[in-house]
Amino acid sequence: MNLEAVIREAKPGDEGAIHQLICGLAEYENAPNEVTNTIENLHSHLFDEKICSALVLEKNDGIIGFALYYTSYSTWKGKCLYLEDFYILPEERRFGYGSILFDKVVEIARSSGAKRMDWQVLDWNEPAINFYKKKEALLDAEWINGRLFF
Amino acid sequence: MNLEAVIREAKPGDEGAIHQLICGLAEYENAPNEVTNTIENLHSHLFDEKICSALVLEKNDGIIGFALYYTSYSTWKGKCLYLEDFYILPEERRFGYGSILFDKVVEIARSSGAKRMDWQVLDWNEPAINFYKKKEALLDAEWINGRLFF
Repeated sequence: MNLEAVIREAKPGDEGAIHQLICGLAEYENAPNEVTNTIENLHSHLFDEKICSALVLEKNDGIIGFALYYTSYSTWKGKCLYLEDFYILPEERRFGYGSILFDKVVEIARSSGAKRMDWQVLDWNEPAINFYKKKEALLDAEWINGRLFF
Repeated sequence: MNLEAVIREAKPGDEGAIHQLICGLAEYENAPNEVTNTIENLHSHLFDEKICSALVLEKNDGIIGFALYYTSYSTWKGKCLYLEDFYILPEERRFGYGSILFDKVVEIARSSGAKRMDWQVLDWNEPAINFYKKKEALLDAEWINGRLFF
C-alpha cells in the first residue's frame, strides 16, 4: 500500500466521518433514505456499548474508507465475524486499498478464533462480486433475508 | 398454546438437547455434515462467553424446539437482533408452537431496543417462507451471502 494511507482502529471522534461514508454507501446502494442511525448513536455503539468495531483507512488526515464488523454466531460453526459494512470512497478505488482493508478484517477474524467470516453483497454489484471472487469467498444466493423493522 | 408446552430461557444442561435440534435442522437443510460446533462449545458460547442467547420450547420435560439469537448491528439502523436458528421438531409442528416462539423473539428484540430483527430462510423452504409472510416480514432476495471459512 502507498505509504500515504494507513489502516487503524476507529477512535472517538471518527464517528462523523464514518457516518458520512455510511451515507455514501447507502446512496451507492440506492437507499439514501434508509440511514436512520445517527452520529451520536454510532459513537455510543462503537465506543461505549462496544456492540461493533471499526477500522478506518486514513490518507492525508482524511478518512477515505472503513470496515465495520461485529462478533456473530453460527449454530453450525460457532463464533464468527460479520463484516457489516466495507467501503472506500469511489475516487480512492483501484489503488488496492480495499484489498488491504479486507485482508486486515480477515486477519482480525482469524486471530479472534472466528470459524467463519460473513458479509452480504447486492446481486447487481458486479465490481464487488468480482472483488470477493478474487478473495476466493463462497458466494451463496440460496438464502433469502427475512426482516422485521421496529 | 397448549398448557403442556412452555417457553423458557435456555439454562446450563440444555446444550445437549439444543445441539441435537441444531443437527436436526442441518439435516432438513441438506447439510448434516456442516455442523462442526460441539456441545461443549455451545455451552461456553451460551452461558460463559454469552455470545448468543437461546429460548427453548419444553413439553413433557423434553425440549421440542428452540430459537437462538444474538445482538447484531446495522450501520443504517443501529442495534439489531439476529435470529440465527429457529426450529421445532417436525412431529410437533402445526400446533402453533413455532408462531408463539417466533413472537417471543420479536418481543425480546423490541424490548431490547433493537431497530430491526433479521434472519435468513432457504429459497426452497416454502413452508418457512409462508410462515414468515404471515408474520408480515420483508423477504428480500437481492442480497448474496459472502463467506470465508477458517
